[in-house]
Amino acid sequence: MADPLAPPSREGAPPHRAHNFSAGPGALPLEVLERARRDMLDWNGTGVSVMEMSHRSAAFQSIVDAARRDLRELLGVPDGYSVLFMQGGAWTQFACVPLNLIGEGTADYVVTGGWSASAAREAARFGKVNVAASSERKDDGEPGVWRSLPPPGEWRLTAGASYVYYCANETVMGVRFGGVPDVPPGTELVADVSSCFLSEPLDVSRFAVLVAGAQKNCGPAGVTIVIARDDLIDSRAAGVPGTCPTMLRYSVMRDKGSMHNTPPCWSIYVTGLVFRWLLDNGGLEAAAARNREKADLLYAAVDECAAFLPHADRECRSLTNVVFRASRDGRTPDADLEAEFVAEAARRGMIGLKGHRSIGGLRASIYNAVPIESVRVLAAFMREFSAEHAG
Amino acid sequence: MADPLAPPSREGAPPHRAHNFSAGPGALPLEVLERARRDMLDWNGTGVSVMEMSHRSAAFQSIVDAARRDLRELLGVPDGYSVLFMQGGAWTQFACVPLNLIGEGTADYVVTGGWSASAAREAARFGKVNVAASSERKDDGEPGVWRSLPPPGEWRLTAGASYVYYCANETVMGVRFGGVPDVPPGTELVADVSSCFLSEPLDVSRFAVLVAGAQKNCGPAGVTIVIARDDLIDSRAAGVPGTCPTMLRYSVMRDKGSMHNTPPCWSIYVTGLVFRWLLDNGGLEAAAARNREKADLLYAAVDECAAFLPHADRECRSLTNVVFRASRDGRTPDADLEAEFVAEAARRGMIGLKGHRSIGGLRASIYNAVPIESVRVLAAFMREFSAEHAG
Repeated sequence: MADPLAPPSREGAPPHRAHNFSAGPGALPLEVLERARRDMLDWNGTGVSVMEMSHRSAAFQSIVDAARRDLRELLGVPDGYSVLFMQGGAWTQFACVPLNLIGEGTADYVVTGGWSASAAREAARFGKVNVAASSERKDDGEPGVWRSLPPPGEWRLTAGASYVYYCANETVMGVRFGGVPDVPPGTELVADVSSCFLSEPLDVSRFAVLVAGAQKNCGPAGVTIVIARDDLIDSRAAGVPGTCPTMLRYSVMRDKGSMHNTPPCWSIYVTGLVFRWLLDNGGLEAAAARNREKADLLYAAVDECAAFLPHADRECRSLTNVVFRASRDGRTPDADLEAEFVAEAARRGMIGLKGHRSIGGLRASIYNAVPIESVRVLAAFMREFSAEHAG
Repeated sequence: MADPLAPPSREGAPPHRAHNFSAGPGALPLEVLERARRDMLDWNGTGVSVMEMSHRSAAFQSIVDAARRDLRELLGVPDGYSVLFMQGGAWTQFACVPLNLIGEGTADYVVTGGWSASAAREAARFGKVNVAASSERKDDGEPGVWRSLPPPGEWRLTAGASYVYYCANETVMGVRFGGVPDVPPGTELVADVSSCFLSEPLDVSRFAVLVAGAQKNCGPAGVTIVIARDDLIDSRAAGVPGTCPTMLRYSVMRDKGSMHNTPPCWSIYVTGLVFRWLLDNGGLEAAAARNREKADLLYAAVDECAAFLPHADRECRSLTNVVFRASRDGRTPDADLEAEFVAEAARRGMIGLKGHRSIGGLRASIYNAVPIESVRVLAAFMREFSAEHAG
């Protein structure tokens, strides 16, 4: 296969591995990639790749079953909840959630960044939406910027709302809910947890529905994990409009074991390997300890270095997405300096540090698979860079 | 990573490869798998797997661009058509097609098997559907069985229909349109070509929209290829209902280069490797010649062996899905004999031969990536089996 994209031959040489701070798709554990590589031509003696096997085969069913079982163990998913493997990412769930749950009622959205804002706008296609709270433009007067959480006392929740929706970790702004918000009893809580899923333990029983694109913290792009309470799927099914596509119906996906048609087999397989890797490495308590240590290292560098300004308020800083600006004077963000930082970091083998195009700046995503060694290298570089440019 | 699914250690041993006749996900070219394996930890010197790179990175953009360019070259996609990489398989397209195209008009569906029947049912959620023709229950009196094509003269097409839809190759029944149906000038033709896509040349200019799940003939599950005429996307955009999810809008996917959100990166990458493999092996004319040779070999075995009965009528036999029954008396299908055939074939390294659960029987899918050697092995086994059981 001659092709212009062919890498230079490195037969025999160990593969080069970058320090990967990409916000998503993000880093995967080296052991997972090595396992996927080893079994690429022949999974478990079947004589075929996971990509080549019927989704109705016993082999693939065992892969899906193991992934679901390991996720339930990892997260302590209670009985009465189903784990669905869907497609289309969080954006498709922005439609699925209201299509399946909103009915004739009102859905409350708490907006703390671009993702929850998009979710609220998409939901309005399907029913009545109330933006119960928003922390947009807190202190800088600019629309489309979030740094904080709206104080719980100021949420204007609808009595008897169909559900209350929030985004537990806004990947772009690095704004995070430290715990599950305190809502009135009986509130059906829905959360997009894409970029913090499996970064720490989570009490699933507090939720009606959890939604997570795998490609940030637990797998490759192409599969979206939905954890939904069965009684809610059932009680709301009659209210799902006829114009809801079959593939977006939670009841269908649940009843068909996520295989109404061919699922994203490879993405489910690799995501399952990540679940297993997390279990083999101490589960979510141990993952949370590793992630807190990484975040502490990086935020310390941001706070202590004159050349860097943190983006999110201290009390809602993300554990997984560290968002910051570079500055020569300690006050004004400097896009040129940021470009210099990104370029010099890349020369040193650190990638994925550019901020999201909507707000610019810098962002280091330190998902489960990012080793602490990578974070140490980055923190050391930040101190060196700061001493040179803002010393 | 200790896990109960771990294959036995085969360090140093060449991987076992089956003769893979799976209907989907189906076989991939060995060279494609080897390339994906080689670059698993480090794609093209980036230091990351394709699964770990931002979809906004230059590296991934080059992968998408190459895939799109190679597909356009392979199929001769004319100017004025866009190539979209979507998610959710043909079943999601069963909703996308009417959501994007039906408007206030009527859509005509030609039903030649389970897939087009499902497409017609799903479309009725979104607008007026006319089943213009159906070949269900032609000669056996059973509903849900198709063996033939409805004669073109008997199609009851709607004047000024929004579009006319058909499935070019019904994977389950092995029923195939040998060419593009002859429809009145100005008819907007939409076809699901999932299981025959890239098996032979196709005149894209005859179509308004083509839809293909990759996992049959050109890649892994998780990506759906849509080729759509731009002027139609544009002229119908105003008629797309507000309740169409953003992710299912062709105009959005086209305008965002298939990246409104994170696409199924790995599936696009591997599908692109298959496009490149097809180009490197003589393009679609050469692929069609190989596929015809394989199909001829297998249908000859079905026709000549007393133990096998073909399912589809001779004039509409699929080039990619050979559907047949086993019989001891040359007339009555025998499910026990079929089970014996599948089990003995598996012992000899041939997998994926069980027919679809909806009709039972046997099916050999001989997609692009299935080597002629595998087909020869199967044909020889069929003759041996027939001599033993129906000789």
